[in-house]
Amino acid sequence: MTATAENPTRFGETSAAARLRRFAAVRERTARLCDPLAIEDYVIQTVAEVSPPKWHLAHTTWFFEHFILAEHLAHYRRFHTDYGYLFNSYYEGVGKYFPRTQRGLLSRPSVSEILAYRRHVNQAMNTLLSANLSKDRSKRIMQLTEIGLQHEQQHQELLLMDIKYNFAFNPMKPAYLDSSNKEEQGSAAPESVEFAWLSIPGGLVEVGTSTTHRFVYDNEKPRHRVHLQPFLLGNRLVTNGEYLEFIAAGGYQQPQWWLADGWNTVQQNQIRAPLYWYQKKADWFVYTLRGEVRLDEQEPVSHVSYYEADAYARWRGARLPLEQEWEHALSCHPPDTTTANFVEKGVRHPLPANANAKTDLYQGVGDLWEWSSSPYQPYPGYRAFPGLLGEYNGKFMCNQMVLRGGCCVTPATHFRPTYRNFFFPYDRWAFSGIRLAKDGG
Amino acid sequence: MTATAENPTRFGETSAAARLRRFAAVRERTARLCDPLAIEDYVIQTVAEVSPPKWHLAHTTWFFEHFILAEHLAHYRRFHTDYGYLFNSYYEGVGKYFPRTQRGLLSRPSVSEILAYRRHVNQAMNTLLSANLSKDRSKRIMQLTEIGLQHEQQHQELLLMDIKYNFAFNPMKPAYLDSSNKEEQGSAAPESVEFAWLSIPGGLVEVGTSTTHRFVYDNEKPRHRVHLQPFLLGNRLVTNGEYLEFIAAGGYQQPQWWLADGWNTVQQNQIRAPLYWYQKKADWFVYTLRGEVRLDEQEPVSHVSYYEADAYARWRGARLPLEQEWEHALSCHPPDTTTANFVEKGVRHPLPANANAKTDLYQGVGDLWEWSSSPYQPYPGYRAFPGLLGEYNGKFMCNQMVLRGGCCVTPATHFRPTYRNFFFPYDRWAFSGIRLAKDGG
Amino acid sequence: MTATAENPTRFGETSAAARLRRFAAVRERTARLCDPLAIEDYVIQTVAEVSPPKWHLAHTTWFFEHFILAEHLAHYRRFHTDYGYLFNSYYEGVGKYFPRTQRGLLSRPSVSEILAYRRHVNQAMNTLLSANLSKDRSKRIMQLTEIGLQHEQQHQELLLMDIKYNFAFNPMKPAYLDSSNKEEQGSAAPESVEFAWLSIPGGLVEVGTSTTHRFVYDNEKPRHRVHLQPFLLGNRLVTNGEYLEFIAAGGYQQPQWWLADGWNTVQQNQIRAPLYWYQKKADWFVYTLRGEVRLDEQEPVSHVSYYEADAYARWRGARLPLEQEWEHALSCHPPDTTTANFVEKGVRHPLPANANAKTDLYQGVGDLWEWSSSPYQPYPGYRAFPGLLGEYNGKFMCNQMVLRGGCCVTPATHFRPTYRNFFFPYDRWAFSGIRLAKDGG
Amino acid sequence: MTATAENPTRFGETSAAARLRRFAAVRERTARLCDPLAIEDYVIQTVAEVSPPKWHLAHTTWFFEHFILAEHLAHYRRFHTDYGYLFNSYYEGVGKYFPRTQRGLLSRPSVSEILAYRRHVNQAMNTLLSANLSKDRSKRIMQLTEIGLQHEQQHQELLLMDIKYNFAFNPMKPAYLDSSNKEEQGSAAPESVEFAWLSIPGGLVEVGTSTTHRFVYDNEKPRHRVHLQPFLLGNRLVTNGEYLEFIAAGGYQQPQWWLADGWNTVQQNQIRAPLYWYQKKADWFVYTLRGEVRLDEQEPVSHVSYYEADAYARWRGARLPLEQEWEHALSCHPPDTTTANFVEKGVRHPLPANANAKTDLYQGVGDLWEWSSSPYQPYPGYRAFPGLLGEYNGKFMCNQMVLRGGCCVTPATHFRPTYRNFFFPYDRWAFSGIRLAKDGG
Repeated sequence: MTATAENPTRFGETSAAARLRRFAAVRERTARLCDPLAIEDYVIQTVAEVSPPKWHLAHTTWFFEHFILAEHLAHYRRFHTDYGYLFNSYYEGVGKYFPRTQRGLLSRPSVSEILAYRRHVNQAMNTLLSANLSKDRSKRIMQLTEIGLQHEQQHQELLLMDIKYNFAFNPMKPAYLDSSNKEEQGSAAPESVEFAWLSIPGGLVEVGTSTTHRFVYDNEKPRHRVHLQPFLLGNRLVTNGEYLEFIAAGGYQQPQWWLADGWNTVQQNQIRAPLYWYQKKADWFVYTLRGEVRLDEQEPVSHVSYYEADAYARWRGARLPLEQEWEHALSCHPPDTTTANFVEKGVRHPLPANANAKTDLYQGVGDLWEWSSSPYQPYPGYRAFPGLLGEYNGKFMCNQMVLRGGCCVTPATHFRPTYRNFFFPYDRWAFSGIRLAKDGG
Repeated sequence: MTATAENPTRFGETSAAARLRRFAAVRERTARLCDPLAIEDYVIQTVAEVSPPKWHLAHTTWFFEHFILAEHLAHYRRFHTDYGYLFNSYYEGVGKYFPRTQRGLLSRPSVSEILAYRRHVNQAMNTLLSANLSKDRSKRIMQLTEIGLQHEQQHQELLLMDIKYNFAFNPMKPAYLDSSNKEEQGSAAPESVEFAWLSIPGGLVEVGTSTTHRFVYDNEKPRHRVHLQPFLLGNRLVTNGEYLEFIAAGGYQQPQWWLADGWNTVQQNQIRAPLYWYQKKADWFVYTLRGEVRLDEQEPVSHVSYYEADAYARWRGARLPLEQEWEHALSCHPPDTTTANFVEKGVRHPLPANANAKTDLYQGVGDLWEWSSSPYQPYPGYRAFPGLLGEYNGKFMCNQMVLRGGCCVTPATHFRPTYRNFFFPYDRWAFSGIRLAKDGG
Repeated sequence: MTATAENPTRFGETSAAARLRRFAAVRERTARLCDPLAIEDYVIQTVAEVSPPKWHLAHTTWFFEHFILAEHLAHYRRFHTDYGYLFNSYYEGVGKYFPRTQRGLLSRPSVSEILAYRRHVNQAMNTLLSANLSKDRSKRIMQLTEIGLQHEQQHQELLLMDIKYNFAFNPMKPAYLDSSNKEEQGSAAPESVEFAWLSIPGGLVEVGTSTTHRFVYDNEKPRHRVHLQPFLLGNRLVTNGEYLEFIAAGGYQQPQWWLADGWNTVQQNQIRAPLYWYQKKADWFVYTLRGEVRLDEQEPVSHVSYYEADAYARWRGARLPLEQEWEHALSCHPPDTTTANFVEKGVRHPLPANANAKTDLYQGVGDLWEWSSSPYQPYPGYRAFPGLLGEYNGKFMCNQMVLRGGCCVTPATHFRPTYRNFFFPYDRWAFSGIRLAKDGG
Repeated sequence: MTATAENPTRFGETSAAARLRRFAAVRERTARLCDPLAIEDYVIQTVAEVSPPKWHLAHTTWFFEHFILAEHLAHYRRFHTDYGYLFNSYYEGVGKYFPRTQRGLLSRPSVSEILAYRRHVNQAMNTLLSANLSKDRSKRIMQLTEIGLQHEQQHQELLLMDIKYNFAFNPMKPAYLDSSNKEEQGSAAPESVEFAWLSIPGGLVEVGTSTTHRFVYDNEKPRHRVHLQPFLLGNRLVTNGEYLEFIAAGGYQQPQWWLADGWNTVQQNQIRAPLYWYQKKADWFVYTLRGEVRLDEQEPVSHVSYYEADAYARWRGARLPLEQEWEHALSCHPPDTTTANFVEKGVRHPLPANANAKTDLYQGVGDLWEWSSSPYQPYPGYRAFPGLLGEYNGKFMCNQMVLRGGCCVTPATHFRPTYRNFFFPYDRWAFSGIRLAKDGG
């Protein structure tokens, strides 16, 4: 399976064969990501926001079954009457669904039953995608299929985030990947990249997209004008070494750097370092998908909350960028996508800035999702997806913060510069990092 | 006491005598707002976000003692060694403070001890404000005193919000004001105002302020440009009658109108109507500061959360305005401040839109705080107050939403068009209402 | 007012005048216990199991109104329609009642309204008790009145326990009684009493009572036989000094002494000493109803939970006595009631064992309620009070432990050797202490 | 495997070969009980008091490893350094242990790793049990091994209780046993048994045991005298049909039948029927280990809490028996053990009283654990097991209630008439039922 096969559909251009290949490739990659798991690993849910791997496998399948097959494939027979209830995630309009916080309390359906479910739905989708349909129906199905595949790719990313959390919770700290498998691991940049401020001009700029030629989420639309002040943006992500200075300076004990809700969060949860960091005597270690490793000061700091990112920035006399600033800066300083650390690279961990990259905005895409200072709100003129899929994005536009740039478990074929990811400000289990910004220019 | 005496200081212009008068008048008004209370009423706290009236009386006093007298009045003796701990609200930089959720568990200091505390501090402030000081120190003290008075006025508003909540909690539903005292009550508008859309032009506009001549909060600064699309704004607030239609149509039972967090909130708390509404058989009643009254369909709907405001707007095919849209619209359609329903009017309840007002933007100020769709974030170039007062506003710029316009318990002398109030999206105990907006123009 | 006037009614013997005197005296004492309170002190409830003083005043009054006047006094008019709901404590059969945990959230009815309620009911009770009634009705009313008075006396004890908890919660640690008022305080015993084991014979013994001549609670009935092994009983209560040895030896850190639920309780609540103890540097202090005092090593240890009492006993190689052992021992070694430290003595704090007492079972009654090792269960043949008063005791016979002996805030006229008090094993706000027992004889 | 092989060791009599056979047979039965499980079923824990099957398999193994092999088998090598922490249940004296409520959050060690752990420990135990040891060491090891086997048998029972709870939680309601496998199911009694009171004489009787010839738990010792009133005891368990009458009469809505804590429990958890009962339209169904079945009115009511048992008894004008009454009655009316429904019978569900049984105390043993009215307290003269095993029973002697008689998932070779089981009064996931008692005789 190559990433090429997974390239997103360009509406009206991509051939039926290419579409079938893409469907197969994306679906297949999800299954492959689970290859290192034992059956027991598919079952557990160690915290409310994490889902069991077998739930991800089933839910992404249900998505095709419910939103496409049930409506568009004649005589389609649902695989099991209970699966709608069990694998609907949050679509209130579709009907009642099993409580999210209890997904890890179900041993059945078993993994093999869920794999059978995937085969059943894949076959039916193949039938549908190969059928001779009217142009209108064909277009609608192509659009829905593309949503389903983009959705599946989002869950590929979640799958690895969730597996990481589940494994790290275990006192035995099992590894998801073999740490000795060097060929899959990234090699550190030959030389480190010194921090520098990039100066970005302000003025009336355009962000977002109004494309109709290819898939984008409703939340990326429409393209619109915003007025920005000139600003400075960090040329790379904040490193573990730089973050250690914040810890050493007592940053977690000094309320002046923190938002009120952030201060409460770190106090109540006794947070003293990023998620997955722990100390043995004087030394810091980090849990990764390859198990425990010594903290690498060159790597970008990861698994911090918005509160930590914001406090760190304030302590440095800086701030986080607006999402519009980030998008505008990226258009001024295009990243080097050939070296970008996405999931296909196989590292599954952020890498130090690569001095050889052909850009001066290092780690601009891949490696880590970057916290912006922008609350997740609709763009002016926002219209949600029609029908029940309107719940996909719009209803979450409150209380969450936007992150930009993709990360080391994001499929490269899923990413776009206008892509808006979002998490609650206290969330830390995503691969989230920090890029600094500053007023002026 | 007249509102005139309470007029805010114009830096460099207001005379010392006027400043002393203002100090006395604002402090006095706080005490007067408590006149209808029995001693027992000063003690209770019926929910975490509400504070006991005696705590408000003491905390506003501590503010002057800690931030001004302790530093600027030679030989000042603090009234009681424990009061710093007891009456610091949330200033982490000042030191530990008594838990907010337990303020209602303290019977001591008694009300009379707290009134003695107020006299002690008032006298010392008089001494300080009458002293012959260098120009620089005098200016600094004037600025701090103004913050203290603005702070006290915020608590005047909170005092009435909190008393309302505390009283409504009691099954006996006691009244704060005598309902028969007709002269203090507003008379309903002779004729109702029909709903209409005002068309507001877009473009590059300026919002916020950079004034140095008079007091503003740090969060209103600096004045800056934003780009707005043309939009429509409701000419008056949404009425109880209009909101009843939403209830009758099953709005609280239909997830499609609600943000995800809003839907969870109404489900978990079994919310089926605005706060203070309740039904007896078919009829709706409302608890007000004058006790129980029948629901008046002409009055604006009040005590709704952001979630309810947002859901209502979506159900109407509209949305809530951005705070920048609101501020821009107000400059296009100046409200009639002579008829505005602020606390001095004595009504302490929102009134129906007054058809006689000299404006076409009814209820633009006073009556109810209007939920905007803007998360409470810093303006570009924001700088917090210097020193420990930097915690006043800045640390709350996350997870809250901006409200605009003042309400029926806001002092008129406290309000400014650039004023940004903020509450959590689930908060309902403020006098908060709904003004609709819509794309287009 | 003398304790004599409060002597309980002997059915069939006590004169009407004496009964009226008793009613007045008991009711009056409740009010007198509140004399040291400020109005604010009547309102608060600092923890779920504590009630506001004004609630006690009203609830004991409602008891007479609901169970006697409403049924037996012709044309009796209830004082207020809401008071039944507000002041019913837990009688499910009577109807819905206001949640116990929220009693401190009501500022109204005010203290003065509740005092008026007391006068209203006292007058009506006087009318009823002076009326010329049939012998049967008179007897029934006499019995019910006696329950009401015993109930009021229980609440006198609770009132002081609750005030102590409420005051101790306040960081300012106000005192209920003036600590300089020496005449009301007990003087320490001239010489201390050395610990000794009393040897008590076993065999078939009788406990409980079947009296019909005077009031007893249903839970003291009937008199019945139990078989006891011979045992040893401590001649006095465990002292603060002895308990300090347990703390110093690390007793709170060593799980082997503790019941599983006790260990969880002390871990979760970080309990390291009895309630009201706290350390300043090396020195131990105790909060008392007269404010803070230095720990007196001769005084009996108080405000311990059953878990602490049980752990201490196990650490000493001993155990707690069964309630039947306690009752049997008391009949073998009658205490000296003339020196007993009950509420009338005015000390309101436990005293060291008095070497001058005419007994060898010191502190057998008064000073502190003594934890037995007996779960609170019905005696064989138990019958609850008839009617709705059946809820008085019977429904609590699960999950609680029996305490015996009365304490320094128990009215002497309320105590009986067969009296069974009961609290949950984790409760600590009662005046509860420890007497050791041991197998053998 | 036959039950015979599992017969408990008679100290000093049983041969080494028989002891090896018993060890193998008991250990083997545990594994066999898991045969119907899928791998996924071993992982989950649907409520705090239930443990994952793989935890039971590992914990019982750790028990032998820690308490026997580590001390008594020279050169024994622990299987894994983390297993002590992971599989210690509650022995504080042994060291820290993984939180009970999170056992279902660990996917590793996997089932196959745990089965390897079992083999490792079984082999080492075989070595130890076959070794030529001094008489004293041999005796000590025999005693400890017997504790380990009795402990394993307790967990066999828990395993089925927990599997039942886990499976019933799943909306798909999977079955543990094949419902069509008729040969394993009990056949209903040919004729039903009419309810009757057995009259049991009172007086001084002996209960408990002081045996040294065979294993008993410390909590069954010592044999001692108690004085009982004559009483009546139901000749069989309360049936589903009888319990339905309580439901139909509104028993769950009438507070007068309930203990206070019981009433709170049913209100807060909205309990309206025994656990595993549910209604589809008018018909009642029950979840069993063979999946869903229609409610059988002849079967004894099962999975009720102490609160429900107590309320039901009070509603019938009866009460629950003391544990001493139960034990005394059993000696007066020996049950027919040949027909008793224990785990070996393979039914794994309670059966209607069997009219053919050779006794007049039907269902006296097997079928269901019977709630007594006795709190779980130490017998007079109780001594806990020596050493760290002292935590086995003693520390739970508070807040729990005794149940007697064994049930349909209890190994027959584990049961004794003096056996004291105990659960919290709110627990319902055990196979617990109701036998009525009454004063008089």
